[in-house]
Amino acid sequence: MILNGYEIAEKRREQLKEKIEELKNLRIIPKLAVIQVGSNDASNIYIRNKKNTCEKVGIEFELYSYEETITFEELKEEISKLNKDKKIHGILVQSPLPKHLNESEVFNVIQKEKDVDGFTTENIGALWNNKTGLISCTPKGIITLLKEYQIKIEGKHVVILGRSNIVGKPLALLFLNENASVTILHSKSKDIKTLTAQADILVSAVGKPNLVTKDMVKKGAIVIDVGINRIDGHIKGDVDFESVSEIASYITPVPKGVGPMTIESILENVIEAIELQRQKKKDLLK
Amino acid sequence: MILNGYEIAEKRREQLKEKIEELKNLRIIPKLAVIQVGSNDASNIYIRNKKNTCEKVGIEFELYSYEETITFEELKEEISKLNKDKKIHGILVQSPLPKHLNESEVFNVIQKEKDVDGFTTENIGALWNNKTGLISCTPKGIITLLKEYQIKIEGKHVVILGRSNIVGKPLALLFLNENASVTILHSKSKDIKTLTAQADILVSAVGKPNLVTKDMVKKGAIVIDVGINRIDGHIKGDVDFESVSEIASYITPVPKGVGPMTIESILENVIEAIELQRQKKKDLLK
Repeated sequence: MILNGYEIAEKRREQLKEKIEELKNLRIIPKLAVIQVGSNDASNIYIRNKKNTCEKVGIEFELYSYEETITFEELKEEISKLNKDKKIHGILVQSPLPKHLNESEVFNVIQKEKDVDGFTTENIGALWNNKTGLISCTPKGIITLLKEYQIKIEGKHVVILGRSNIVGKPLALLFLNENASVTILHSKSKDIKTLTAQADILVSAVGKPNLVTKDMVKKGAIVIDVGINRIDGHIKGDVDFESVSEIASYITPVPKGVGPMTIESILENVIEAIELQRQKKKDLLK
Repeated sequence: MILNGYEIAEKRREQLKEKIEELKNLRIIPKLAVIQVGSNDASNIYIRNKKNTCEKVGIEFELYSYEETITFEELKEEISKLNKDKKIHGILVQSPLPKHLNESEVFNVIQKEKDVDGFTTENIGALWNNKTGLISCTPKGIITLLKEYQIKIEGKHVVILGRSNIVGKPLALLFLNENASVTILHSKSKDIKTLTAQADILVSAVGKPNLVTKDMVKKGAIVIDVGINRIDGHIKGDVDFESVSEIASYITPVPKGVGPMTIESILENVIEAIELQRQKKKDLLK
């Protein structure tokens, strides 16, 4: 069965629109600020997509572009202004940044209640402690997708291919918080197939087309494909969809699987950010 | 073969003494502050042990005891004083804290360069990003022990029983940073034996005597026992040592395995803390 991320995202987007309407009745207009340093084609496409999706659901979008030569101190100053700006509820820094800027240092300037990417150390700490915080969009989207299909996670053995800070590691924590057993594999792992073939839920977040083949998957497993590989103008995942879909009980396609759920999670995080900021204000007034 | 944590800790302690002598020549006298709120027998024993060990190697030790009724704000004030005190290089908060105090909130008051337990969000973030920081003592002690025996970690499949913030999770990150494949199992995991029996390195950090039996261990595996269980006045680990030692290639005993390495890591962290504080001062003067 196909885990239709596109359809689920559409459905949740309708629910989100209602929430946004309610906020507008309270005279709160959700707004996302995206920071771009320099420019490259891929980033431009991502940013344009985010802009379109935001505007479709009624989230204001503003792009802050800076020269490639901006210093960390200057960028810090700019982000600090956005942190203080009450009209802005979410802040995203578009990767990649020029080499002279340290990504995690830049992310950590963002106020945790506006960090809709969930990349700040404070939000990772929240995930670590299984407490309220903003969660990275791809991992969050994957868990949401499984829950929408009422797939039980507790007690399942999850095998994750890839240990990045953006997907692999936060996803491992999320699955642990959902009481799954978790295995993380990566480029230095040996005998990958033995472990993937035991997974109840197999996630590939590597970026290698056809990395996951039928012989690596247990019959009836749930297969989540995070890979986005561009080949001859087409987009392909990490999973050999045709053969693996023959034995998987559930599988995400690429495109229209995890991708739309990631975008949906950004939107949901903007609305969650508003709630966190309102809660913080209440706590301060106590 | 026995992984003799006691012996390794003794050896490293001699090296540490030399470092401490060098620091004293620079008129730096390493000092650890331990914070105790309320009092219980187990904590009193732990604190006394830490004091003895510190004094043996030439690290000054000071206990700061507070009434069980201290508020978070008051405790924060006290820790802030210690953060500013240039004569104090390491700060430890003894667990457990009374229920009205949130442990992670209290830990996070400690300046990261003095956080010799490695429990602050900032130090977890450093571990997350595989960057310089102070690392939790038990996980650090385990990796040190394996390296002292020149056991290769890269590419090995490590299975960790237990997902605590103090051992399981930071240890998983450390092993990932060492390029191992990592599986985390816990109380909600099913069919534990199937996975433990595949481990090249098996770590038990649960706190249940005789949890790990011979049938759960692969022949030739390395077995690390973090458990400390008190039974009829004796200390026992999680591993059924007698039977498991027949098939393990290396195994830690309890006591004299991981325990002494944990204590050794506290001492090493105090000295590392001094280096981090000196580096910070240099960076500020730049």
